[in-house]
Amino acid sequence: MHFTKARIAALEKHTRTHFINSLSGFKSANLIGTQDSQGNTNLSIVSSVIHLGAHPPLIGMIMRPHSVPRHTFENILATGVYTINHVNSAIYQQAHQTSARYDKNESEFAATGLTPEYLNEFSAPFVQQSRLKYAVKYIEHQHLAVNGTELVIGEIMDVYLDEAALQSDGFLDLQAIDTVAISGLDSYHSTNKLMRLPYAKK
Amino acid sequence: MHFTKARIAALEKHTRTHFINSLSGFKSANLIGTQDSQGNTNLSIVSSVIHLGAHPPLIGMIMRPHSVPRHTFENILATGVYTINHVNSAIYQQAHQTSARYDKNESEFAATGLTPEYLNEFSAPFVQQSRLKYAVKYIEHQHLAVNGTELVIGEIMDVYLDEAALQSDGFLDLQAIDTVAISGLDSYHSTNKLMRLPYAKK
Repeated sequence: MHFTKARIAALEKHTRTHFINSLSGFKSANLIGTQDSQGNTNLSIVSSVIHLGAHPPLIGMIMRPHSVPRHTFENILATGVYTINHVNSAIYQQAHQTSARYDKNESEFAATGLTPEYLNEFSAPFVQQSRLKYAVKYIEHQHLAVNGTELVIGEIMDVYLDEAALQSDGFLDLQAIDTVAISGLDSYHSTNKLMRLPYAKK
Repeated sequence: MHFTKARIAALEKHTRTHFINSLSGFKSANLIGTQDSQGNTNLSIVSSVIHLGAHPPLIGMIMRPHSVPRHTFENILATGVYTINHVNSAIYQQAHQTSARYDKNESEFAATGLTPEYLNEFSAPFVQQSRLKYAVKYIEHQHLAVNGTELVIGEIMDVYLDEAALQSDGFLDLQAIDTVAISGLDSYHSTNKLMRLPYAKK
Protein backbone atom coordinates (compact mmCIF):
# COMPACT_ATOMS: atom_id res chain seq x y z
CA MET A 1 0.00 0.00 0.00
CA HIS A 2 1.19 3.50 -0.83
CA PHE A 3 0.24 6.56 1.21
CA THR A 4 1.37 9.74 -0.50
CA LYS A 5 2.12 12.85 1.54
CA ALA A 6 -1.18 14.31 0.32
CA ARG A 7 -3.14 11.21 1.33
CA ILE A 8 -1.55 11.31 4.80
CA ALA A 9 -2.34 15.01 5.17
CA ALA A 10 -5.97 14.28 4.27
CA LEU A 11 -6.43 11.64 6.98
CA GLU A 12 -8.79 12.51 9.82
CA LYS A 13 -6.67 14.09 12.57
CA HIS A 14 -6.78 11.23 15.10
CA THR A 15 -6.24 8.68 12.34
CA ARG A 16 -3.18 10.60 11.21
CA THR A 17 -1.90 10.81 14.78
CA HIS A 18 -2.13 7.02 15.19
CA PHE A 19 -0.59 6.44 11.77
CA ILE A 20 2.40 8.76 12.18
CA ASN A 21 3.04 7.67 15.76
CA SER A 22 3.41 4.10 14.49
CA LEU A 23 6.12 4.86 11.95
CA SER A 24 9.18 5.16 14.17
CA GLY A 25 8.94 1.51 15.26
CA PHE A 26 8.91 0.12 18.80
CA LYS A 27 9.52 2.66 21.55
CA SER A 28 10.74 2.59 25.12
CA ALA A 29 8.19 2.68 27.96
CA ASN A 30 9.33 4.77 30.91
CA LEU A 31 7.79 6.60 33.84
CA ILE A 32 9.32 9.98 34.66
CA GLY A 33 9.24 10.78 38.39
CA THR A 34 9.51 14.40 39.53
CA GLN A 35 8.37 16.73 42.25
CA ASP A 36 7.85 20.45 42.42
CA SER A 37 9.59 22.80 44.84
CA GLN A 38 6.81 22.17 47.40
CA GLY A 39 7.36 18.40 47.24
CA ASN A 40 4.22 17.55 45.25
CA THR A 41 5.05 14.44 43.24
CA ASN A 42 4.34 13.86 39.56
CA LEU A 43 4.60 10.74 37.41
CA SER A 44 4.29 10.67 33.64
CA ILE A 45 4.60 7.91 31.06
CA VAL A 46 6.90 8.82 28.19
CA SER A 47 7.67 6.82 25.04
CA SER A 48 10.41 9.15 23.81
CA VAL A 49 13.32 8.33 26.12
CA ILE A 50 16.39 7.78 23.97
CA HIS A 51 20.02 6.82 24.47
CA LEU A 52 22.35 9.73 23.67
CA GLY A 53 25.74 8.38 24.67
CA ALA A 54 27.63 6.18 27.10
CA HIS A 55 30.76 8.29 27.71
CA PRO A 56 29.50 10.39 29.51
CA PRO A 57 26.24 8.51 30.22
CA LEU A 58 23.51 10.71 28.76
CA ILE A 59 19.81 10.17 28.22
CA GLY A 60 17.35 12.29 26.24
CA MET A 61 13.60 12.60 25.92
CA ILE A 62 11.24 14.63 23.77
CA MET A 63 8.62 16.66 25.62
CA ARG A 64 5.70 18.59 24.26
CA PRO A 65 5.46 21.64 26.54
CA HIS A 66 1.77 22.22 25.92
CA SER A 67 0.55 18.67 26.39
CA VAL A 68 0.06 16.52 29.48
CA PRO A 69 3.68 16.12 30.56
CA ARG A 70 4.17 19.86 31.07
CA HIS A 71 4.18 19.37 34.86
CA THR A 72 7.10 17.03 34.36
CA PHE A 73 9.03 19.56 32.30
CA GLU A 74 8.29 22.38 34.76
CA ASN A 75 9.39 20.24 37.69
CA ILE A 76 12.62 19.27 35.95
CA LEU A 77 13.44 22.90 35.25
CA ALA A 78 12.56 23.88 38.84
CA THR A 79 14.45 21.13 40.67
CA GLY A 80 17.11 19.92 38.21
CA VAL A 81 16.44 16.25 38.92
CA TYR A 82 14.17 13.41 37.77
CA THR A 83 13.97 9.65 37.75
CA ILE A 84 13.46 7.27 34.83
CA ASN A 85 11.69 4.01 35.68
CA HIS A 86 11.17 1.12 33.24
CA VAL A 87 7.56 0.05 32.80
CA ASN A 88 7.08 -3.70 33.18
CA SER A 89 4.17 -5.94 32.29
CA ALA A 90 2.82 -5.92 35.88
CA ILE A 91 2.31 -2.13 35.89
CA TYR A 92 1.75 -1.07 32.29
CA GLN A 93 -1.94 -0.34 32.79
CA GLN A 94 -1.23 1.89 35.79
CA ALA A 95 1.64 3.47 33.87
CA HIS A 96 -0.65 4.29 30.94
CA GLN A 97 -3.18 5.83 33.31
CA THR A 98 -0.62 8.51 34.30
CA SER A 99 -1.25 10.07 30.87
CA ALA A 100 -4.71 11.29 32.02
CA ARG A 101 -4.96 15.02 32.64
CA TYR A 102 -4.52 15.19 36.40
CA ASP A 103 -4.25 18.62 37.98
CA LYS A 104 -0.92 19.79 39.31
CA ASN A 105 -1.97 19.17 42.94
CA GLU A 106 -3.07 15.59 42.21
CA SER A 107 -0.28 13.03 42.27
CA GLU A 108 -0.34 10.36 39.58
CA PHE A 109 1.22 8.05 42.18
CA ALA A 110 -1.87 8.21 44.39
CA ALA A 111 -4.24 8.21 41.41
CA THR A 112 -2.77 5.06 39.85
CA GLY A 113 -1.64 3.10 42.90
CA LEU A 114 2.04 3.20 42.03
CA THR A 115 4.29 3.71 45.05
CA PRO A 116 6.76 6.61 45.36
CA GLU A 117 10.13 5.57 46.73
CA TYR A 118 13.05 7.80 47.78
CA LEU A 119 16.52 6.31 47.45
CA ASN A 120 19.83 7.57 48.85
CA GLU A 121 18.58 11.10 49.43
CA PHE A 122 17.88 11.78 45.75
CA SER A 123 15.04 14.28 45.84
CA ALA A 124 12.95 12.98 42.93
CA PRO A 125 10.66 9.98 43.51
CA PHE A 126 11.28 6.56 41.99
CA VAL A 127 8.57 4.01 41.24
CA GLN A 128 8.88 1.21 43.77
CA GLN A 129 7.33 -1.35 41.36
CA SER A 130 9.84 -0.66 38.60
CA ARG A 131 12.64 -3.22 38.28
CA LEU A 132 15.14 -0.93 36.51
CA LYS A 133 15.31 2.76 37.41
CA TYR A 134 17.84 5.53 37.64
CA ALA A 135 18.43 9.00 38.97
CA VAL A 136 18.99 11.69 36.34
CA LYS A 137 20.52 15.14 36.72
CA TYR A 138 19.12 17.67 34.24
CA ILE A 139 21.78 19.17 31.97
CA GLU A 140 19.97 21.22 29.33
CA HIS A 141 17.10 21.33 26.90
CA GLN A 142 17.19 22.13 23.23
CA HIS A 143 14.13 23.74 21.69
CA LEU A 144 13.10 22.18 18.38
CA ALA A 145 11.70 25.21 16.61
CA VAL A 146 10.39 23.01 13.80
CA ASN A 147 7.44 21.91 15.96
CA GLY A 148 7.83 23.47 19.40
CA THR A 149 8.99 20.33 21.21
CA GLU A 150 11.91 20.19 23.63
CA LEU A 151 14.75 17.69 23.74
CA VAL A 152 15.54 17.32 27.45
CA ILE A 153 19.06 16.03 28.13
CA GLY A 154 20.19 14.54 31.44
CA GLU A 155 23.14 12.75 32.98
CA ILE A 156 22.59 9.24 34.34
CA MET A 157 23.57 9.09 38.01
CA ASP A 158 22.72 6.12 40.27
CA VAL A 159 21.12 3.02 38.70
CA TYR A 160 18.94 0.51 40.60
CA LEU A 161 18.10 -2.82 39.03
CA ASP A 162 16.80 -6.26 39.67
CA GLU A 163 19.85 -8.50 39.47
CA ALA A 164 18.00 -10.84 37.10
CA ALA A 165 18.81 -8.29 34.38
CA LEU A 166 22.59 -8.05 34.74
CA GLN A 167 24.76 -10.03 32.32
CA SER A 168 28.51 -10.48 32.68
CA ASP A 169 29.39 -8.14 29.78
CA GLY A 170 27.28 -5.26 31.12
CA PHE A 171 24.28 -5.95 28.87
CA LEU A 172 20.97 -5.76 30.73
CA ASP A 173 18.41 -8.41 29.82
CA LEU A 174 15.28 -6.26 29.76
CA GLN A 175 13.13 -9.23 28.86
CA ALA A 176 14.16 -11.02 32.08
CA ILE A 177 12.68 -8.14 34.09
CA ASP A 178 9.55 -7.85 31.93
CA THR A 179 10.26 -4.36 30.58
CA VAL A 180 7.64 -3.62 27.91
CA ALA A 181 7.77 -1.78 24.58
CA ILE A 182 5.21 0.62 23.11
CA SER A 183 4.00 0.98 19.54
CA GLY A 184 1.87 3.83 18.32
CA LEU A 185 0.15 5.80 21.06
CA ASP A 186 -1.35 3.04 23.13
CA SER A 187 -0.15 -0.48 22.30
CA TYR A 188 1.99 -2.35 24.84
CA HIS A 189 4.17 -5.36 24.06
CA SER A 190 6.29 -7.89 25.85
CA THR A 191 9.22 -9.30 23.90
CA ASN A 192 10.78 -12.57 22.73
CA LYS A 193 14.51 -12.53 22.28
CA LEU A 194 15.59 -13.56 18.79
CA MET A 195 19.34 -13.37 19.35
CA ARG A 196 22.23 -11.23 20.47
CA LEU A 197 24.46 -10.73 17.47
CA PRO A 198 28.24 -10.34 17.52
CA TYR A 199 29.96 -7.06 16.70
CA ALA A 200 29.71 -6.85 12.91
CA LYS A 201 32.90 -7.12 10.88
CA LYS A 202 33.52 -6.95 7.14
CA MET B 1 21.39 -3.91 42.99
CA HIS B 2 22.72 -0.38 43.19
CA PHE B 3 25.27 1.03 40.76
CA THR B 4 26.51 4.43 41.88
CA LYS B 5 27.77 6.94 39.36
CA ALA B 6 31.32 6.17 40.52
CA ARG B 7 30.81 2.41 40.11
CA ILE B 8 29.46 2.95 36.59
CA ALA B 9 32.38 5.21 35.69
CA ALA B 10 34.78 2.50 36.89
CA LEU B 11 33.31 -0.22 34.64
CA GLU B 12 35.52 -1.47 31.84
CA LYS B 13 34.74 0.64 28.77
CA HIS B 14 32.87 -2.00 26.72
CA THR B 15 30.99 -3.16 29.80
CA ARG B 16 29.91 0.39 30.48
CA THR B 17 28.85 0.82 26.84
CA HIS B 18 26.62 -2.28 27.03
CA PHE B 19 25.24 -1.21 30.41
CA ILE B 20 24.38 2.39 29.50
CA ASN B 21 23.00 1.41 26.09
CA SER B 22 20.52 -0.87 27.87
CA LEU B 23 19.05 1.81 30.12
CA SER B 24 16.76 3.63 27.70
CA GLY B 25 14.56 0.55 27.20
CA PHE B 26 13.53 -1.09 23.93
CA LYS B 27 14.50 0.79 20.79
CA SER B 28 13.32 0.96 17.22
CA ALA B 29 15.19 -1.01 14.53
CA ASN B 30 15.47 0.83 11.25
CA LEU B 31 17.65 0.81 8.16
CA ILE B 32 18.55 4.21 6.74
CA GLY B 33 18.93 4.18 2.95
CA THR B 34 20.93 6.92 1.25
CA GLN B 35 23.13 7.55 -1.74
CA ASP B 36 25.88 10.03 -2.46
CA SER B 37 25.87 12.52 -5.30
CA GLN B 38 27.50 9.90 -7.57
CA GLY B 39 24.72 7.42 -6.87
CA ASN B 40 26.70 5.10 -4.59
CA THR B 41 24.21 3.57 -2.17
CA ASN B 42 24.59 3.25 1.58
CA LEU B 43 22.54 1.37 4.15
CA SER B 44 22.94 1.70 7.91
CA ILE B 45 21.10 0.21 10.86
CA VAL B 46 20.05 2.81 13.43
CA SER B 47 18.36 2.24 16.81
CA SER B 48 17.79 5.94 17.50
CA VAL B 49 14.89 6.80 15.19
CA ILE B 50 12.30 8.66 17.23
CA HIS B 51 8.85 10.15 16.68
CA LEU B 52 8.94 13.95 16.89
CA GLY B 53 5.40 14.93 15.93
CA ALA B 54 2.42 14.06 13.76
CA HIS B 55 1.31 17.55 12.67
CA PRO B 56 3.50 18.07 10.64
CA PRO B 57 4.79 14.47 10.39
CA LEU B 58 8.39 14.65 11.65
CA ILE B 59 10.93 11.99 12.46
CA GLY B 60 14.28 12.34 14.24
CA MET B 61 17.39 10.25 14.72
CA ILE B 62 20.62 10.64 16.65
CA MET B 63 23.81 10.23 14.65
CA ARG B 64 27.37 10.06 15.84
CA PRO B 65 29.36 11.89 13.16
CA HIS B 66 32.61 10.09 13.85
CA SER B 67 31.30 6.54 13.99
CA VAL B 68 30.15 4.11 11.32
CA PRO B 69 27.01 5.94 10.12
CA ARG B 70 28.98 9.02 9.04
CA HIS B 71 28.45 8.06 5.38
CA THR B 72 24.74 8.20 6.07
CA PHE B 73 24.96 11.65 7.60
CA GLU B 74 27.19 12.95 4.78
CA ASN B 75 24.81 11.56 2.15
CA ILE B 76 21.80 13.14 3.84
CA LEU B 77 23.50 16.53 3.91
CA ALA B 78 24.62 16.16 0.28
CA THR B 79 21.31 14.99 -1.20
CA GLY B 80 18.63 16.12 1.27
CA VAL B 81 16.78 12.80 1.17
CA TYR B 82 16.81 9.40 2.85
CA THR B 83 14.59 6.42 3.48
CA ILE B 84 13.65 4.74 6.76
CA ASN B 85 12.91 1.01 6.52
CA HIS B 86 11.61 -1.14 9.40
CA VAL B 87 13.75 -4.16 10.19
CA ASN B 88 11.72 -7.36 10.42
CA SER B 89 12.59 -10.77 11.81
CA ALA B 90 13.46 -12.17 8.36
CA ILE B 91 16.24 -9.62 7.78
CA TYR B 92 17.55 -8.61 11.20
CA GLN B 93 20.84 -10.45 10.81
CA GLN B 94 21.53 -8.79 7.46
CA ALA B 95 20.43 -5.47 8.94
CA HIS B 96 22.87 -5.84 11.85
CA GLN B 97 25.68 -6.63 9.41
CA THR B 98 25.33 -3.14 7.87
CA SER B 99 27.01 -1.83 11.04
CA ALA B 100 30.37 -3.24 9.92
CA ARG B 101 32.90 -0.66 8.74
CA TYR B 102 32.46 -0.83 5.00
CA ASP B 103 34.32 1.70 2.88
CA LYS B 104 32.41 4.47 1.20
CA ASN B 105 32.62 2.79 -2.21
CA GLU B 106 31.26 -0.52 -0.88
CA SER B 107 27.48 -0.72 -0.71
CA GLU B 108 25.99 -2.37 2.35
CA PHE B 109 23.18 -3.55 0.06
CA ALA B 110 25.56 -5.71 -1.96
CA ALA B 111 27.53 -6.75 1.11
CA THR B 112 24.48 -7.98 3.05
CA GLY B 113 22.21 -9.23 0.27
CA LEU B 114 19.48 -6.68 0.93
CA THR B 115 17.90 -5.35 -2.27
CA PRO B 116 17.81 -1.63 -3.16
CA GLU B 117 14.47 -0.49 -4.52
CA TYR B 118 13.58 2.88 -6.06
CA LEU B 119 9.98 3.99 -5.71
CA ASN B 120 8.15 6.82 -7.46
CA GLU B 121 11.31 8.63 -8.52
CA PHE B 122 12.47 9.27 -4.96
CA SER B 123 16.26 9.36 -5.28
CA ALA B 124 17.19 7.49 -2.08
CA PRO B 125 17.05 3.68 -2.07
CA PHE B 126 14.47 1.71 -0.07
CA VAL B 127 15.00 -1.83 1.20
CA GLN B 128 12.85 -4.13 -0.88
CA GLN B 129 12.57 -6.68 1.98
CA SER B 130 11.21 -4.15 4.48
CA ARG B 131 7.44 -4.27 5.02
CA LEU B 132 7.06 -0.68 6.28
CA LYS B 133 9.21 2.09 4.82
CA TYR B 134 8.99 5.75 4.01
CA ALA B 135 10.66 8.55 2.12
CA VAL B 136 12.08 11.36 4.28
CA LYS B 137 13.05 14.89 3.29
CA TYR B 138 15.86 16.31 5.41
CA ILE B 139 14.88 19.50 7.27
CA GLU B 140 17.73 20.31 9.66
CA HIS B 141 20.14 18.95 12.20
CA GLN B 142 20.80 20.18 15.69
CA HIS B 143 24.25 19.71 17.13
CA LEU B 144 24.25 18.39 20.69
CA ALA B 145 27.35 20.07 22.05
CA VAL B 146 27.13 18.00 25.24
CA ASN B 147 28.59 14.96 23.44
CA GLY B 148 29.06 15.86 19.78
CA THR B 149 26.10 13.93 18.41
CA GLU B 150 23.61 15.30 15.88
CA LEU B 151 19.83 15.19 16.02
CA VAL B 152 18.79 14.82 12.36
CA ILE B 153 15.21 15.97 11.69
CA GLY B 154 13.22 15.04 8.60
CA GLU B 155 9.72 15.30 7.20
CA ILE B 156 7.86 12.09 6.43
CA MET B 157 6.81 12.01 2.77
CA ASP B 158 5.46 8.88 1.05
CA VAL B 159 4.82 5.76 3.17
CA TYR B 160 4.81 2.18 1.81
CA LEU B 161 3.44 -0.63 3.92
CA ASP B 162 2.23 -4.18 3.89
CA GLU B 163 -1.53 -3.89 4.27
CA ALA B 164 -1.45 -6.48 7.06
CA ALA B 165 -0.32 -3.62 9.31
CA LEU B 166 -3.11 -1.10 8.70
CA GLN B 167 -5.91 -0.86 11.27
CA SER B 168 -9.10 1.12 10.79
CA ASP B 169 -8.13 3.90 13.22
CA GLY B 170 -4.76 4.54 11.58
CA PHE B 171 -2.74 2.47 14.07
CA LEU B 172 -0.18 0.23 12.40
CA ASP B 173 0.18 -3.26 13.84
CA LEU B 174 3.96 -3.61 13.75
CA GLN B 175 3.79 -7.08 15.21
CA ALA B 176 1.69 -8.28 12.26
CA ILE B 177 4.53 -7.34 9.91
CA ASP B 178 7.26 -8.76 12.17
CA THR B 179 8.99 -5.46 12.92
CA VAL B 180 11.63 -6.12 15.58
CA ALA B 181 12.88 -4.14 18.58
CA ILE B 182 16.46 -3.70 19.80
CA SER B 183 17.82 -3.64 23.33
CA GLY B 184 21.34 -2.63 24.22
CA LEU B 185 23.76 -2.66 21.31
CA ASP B 186 23.06 -6.02 19.77
CA SER B 187 19.94 -7.82 21.07
CA TYR B 188 16.98 -8.28 18.74
CA HIS B 189 13.43 -9.07 19.85
CA SER B 190 10.10 -9.92 18.34
CA THR B 191 7.04 -8.83 20.32
CA ASN B 192 3.83 -10.15 21.89
CA LYS B 193 1.01 -7.68 22.12
CA LEU B 194 -0.30 -7.26 25.66
CA MET B 195 -3.10 -4.83 24.89
CA ARG B 196 -4.03 -1.55 23.28
CA LEU B 197 -5.28 0.72 26.04
CA PRO B 198 -7.97 3.38 25.72
CA TYR B 199 -7.17 7.09 25.92
CA ALA B 200 -6.63 7.68 29.66
CA LYS B 201 -9.18 9.80 31.52
CA LYS B 202 -9.30 10.85 35.17
